[in-house]
Amino acid sequence: MAAATLGIVEALSFLKARSEVLARVRAARVTPHMEFLPLEQATGRVLAEPAFADRDYPPEPRSMRDGFAVRAADLPGTFTIVGEVRAGQSSDCRVEPGEAVEIMTGASVPEGADTVVMVEHTTVAGDRVDVPKALEMGANVNPQGRDAVAGALILRPGIRLGYAEIALLASIGQAEVAVYKRPRVAILATGDELVEVETKPEPHQIRNSNTWSLAAQVIRAGGEAVVLPVAPDELEITKELIANGLECDVLLLSGGVSAGKYDLVETALHSFGAEMYFDRVLIQPGQPCVFGQAQGTFFFGLPGNPASTMVCFEIFARAALELISGVVEPMLAITGAQLKSPFRQKTGLTRFLPARLDEEGLLTPIGWSGSGDIAALTRANAYLVSDPEKGEYAAGDWIGVMAR
Amino acid sequence: MAAATLGIVEALSFLKARSEVLARVRAARVTPHMEFLPLEQATGRVLAEPAFADRDYPPEPRSMRDGFAVRAADLPGTFTIVGEVRAGQSSDCRVEPGEAVEIMTGASVPEGADTVVMVEHTTVAGDRVDVPKALEMGANVNPQGRDAVAGALILRPGIRLGYAEIALLASIGQAEVAVYKRPRVAILATGDELVEVETKPEPHQIRNSNTWSLAAQVIRAGGEAVVLPVAPDELEITKELIANGLECDVLLLSGGVSAGKYDLVETALHSFGAEMYFDRVLIQPGQPCVFGQAQGTFFFGLPGNPASTMVCFEIFARAALELISGVVEPMLAITGAQLKSPFRQKTGLTRFLPARLDEEGLLTPIGWSGSGDIAALTRANAYLVSDPEKGEYAAGDWIGVMAR
Repeated sequence: MAAATLGIVEALSFLKARSEVLARVRAARVTPHMEFLPLEQATGRVLAEPAFADRDYPPEPRSMRDGFAVRAADLPGTFTIVGEVRAGQSSDCRVEPGEAVEIMTGASVPEGADTVVMVEHTTVAGDRVDVPKALEMGANVNPQGRDAVAGALILRPGIRLGYAEIALLASIGQAEVAVYKRPRVAILATGDELVEVETKPEPHQIRNSNTWSLAAQVIRAGGEAVVLPVAPDELEITKELIANGLECDVLLLSGGVSAGKYDLVETALHSFGAEMYFDRVLIQPGQPCVFGQAQGTFFFGLPGNPASTMVCFEIFARAALELISGVVEPMLAITGAQLKSPFRQKTGLTRFLPARLDEEGLLTPIGWSGSGDIAALTRANAYLVSDPEKGEYAAGDWIGVMAR
Repeated sequence: MAAATLGIVEALSFLKARSEVLARVRAARVTPHMEFLPLEQATGRVLAEPAFADRDYPPEPRSMRDGFAVRAADLPGTFTIVGEVRAGQSSDCRVEPGEAVEIMTGASVPEGADTVVMVEHTTVAGDRVDVPKALEMGANVNPQGRDAVAGALILRPGIRLGYAEIALLASIGQAEVAVYKRPRVAILATGDELVEVETKPEPHQIRNSNTWSLAAQVIRAGGEAVVLPVAPDELEITKELIANGLECDVLLLSGGVSAGKYDLVETALHSFGAEMYFDRVLIQPGQPCVFGQAQGTFFFGLPGNPASTMVCFEIFARAALELISGVVEPMLAITGAQLKSPFRQKTGLTRFLPARLDEEGLLTPIGWSGSGDIAALTRANAYLVSDPEKGEYAAGDWIGVMAR
């Protein structure tokens, strides 16, 4: 799919291309279906209904320390210890002037008391406790409703449920939770050179690996992978398989993108009235990356080279997949790291290259022989993300880093 | 478990504590059991046997461009086009002096030819192609065995299988793969104040949420979560449950760590001859974090506060769990981000605070009311990781960031 075919003169920058994907998919206003799951099965899924606080958090004033609950007005002074309360006990006792109740961290502050004195700041003798210093009212007390008041919205729909969200839903008693159904993502690898993993390839053949990495990436991104058989370089069969793929929520094609004149995939897509939004992005690997739509289904034409396919999925296809999953804010987390060794590049492309991040947070680029070199990628635990305008980086310079 | 009980005078820094965990667990030389899985079920698992290249990669010299395969010695010159070869075709034709074969990206370079001229640098007229410039031998050709030679070790045991590793195993024909069995991780929450998610708590009670977040974290870290019933503040029952927990590969306890004099958990652990390696770390949240071993099983005493439990798991327990899973190099990925707003802290502790990373890579701390405030954590997509010696950060300063 050469730029020419689209009449696109200049290729898109990585950020422009990503915005294009987000804008097009958002505009389509896909509304995923909902299902109810027991909380223990909801991790990684996308919340479909808002969650509200079922009561005040905390529901009563709670002590933040081990110590003595008193009235601030009585401080400083010596108090009679009239009882004890710990987490999990109801504070039935009441604190009158001159009285103190021994209290543990997390316990409810008894009626009458308004302040907790840390045990370290007291001297206990029998049933008497001496507090030499004054404290302001409310010290060491977590007031009722401080974290959330009853009825407050605490979790919005469209957020992916990680361990913290699951804990929050458990704390408000949601044993069952409404989540969006997983989108179905068709994966179609193309090319006569491809054979299946069980087959011993001839010298001019290679085993199909893109389908495998894409399926793993789709599942990790919260989708359901629908793997189609490999499409040979044959128009009719390719059309048939693309037709199947377009019945899913997203279609991922790999290969057949930069295969010169043997470009059946593009012809096949056009026979379904495909609209192409971009077909070249200023990144490496993955420059000839296609994004479009046919019969209401978004598709990505990912380059045949393994690393190109993996990178294009992570930075473009995953965003589309997440929006279609109901995620409100798909996120591409690119942070920074300092280079352990110098790095140089030809300017003009945003590069996503295999690199190793160590425990000190230093980043080392990993040598590779190009985007066919999967082995190099497996030695990496991160992608180095370069600034297309910066040709030279010295050791110690900050550079972009993205998790692999 | 106050420091006093261990006679530990000073608490450990975050890095010292993490090294202690890694060193202790490595010294135990746990050897996980192995099982064979079909490749499609192996994602996220840990490779148990080395993987070797089944043939040279590439198996033949491959063209890296669309163009014409020629002999470098004949350049520059005009050539007779004697054939065409594309990816997936065997290059049966042979290139004699003065001859050229049209070739596609990824196709095998025909015998006799040693160099590929990019189509952009040629002029074709009928069955003749003119190449005005010379090229050095081997240009645009990916030589046989460049990525890997047959028999080369390409994947070491002890690596977690992500999408790239799965693709590599597919490319070498491993339809079945040897992985380590998942470790069983017991989760035991303690405290009279805890009730189950289905129960409506009294004002002095809270629902058990730590078990839920820990189970999600354990599964994400590649373990199997074995959830034990909540332990009340009662020595005999606590002992019984700890005994069950110690039969697993790792035991995670939450709560009962900073509960003042009602500290049954410690007493119960000591009755099993527990050895404590540390019980306080200079971090926030999670300062009263315990790591030890009893009857050959490593355990972590995680603070009862939800955020403390989550953070201590991520930075300490996960490392132990991964080593026991067979992972050779457990990794805590702390990278950098520039602050969107200033940040100040009391020095002395490494802080892991809820923060929001935006698409520009800028980090904004999120206000929270302390480590009981799970809701604040769900508004975060990252942890801000502070330098314990730096009290003041200005907007634009670099600061540590860890994914949530």
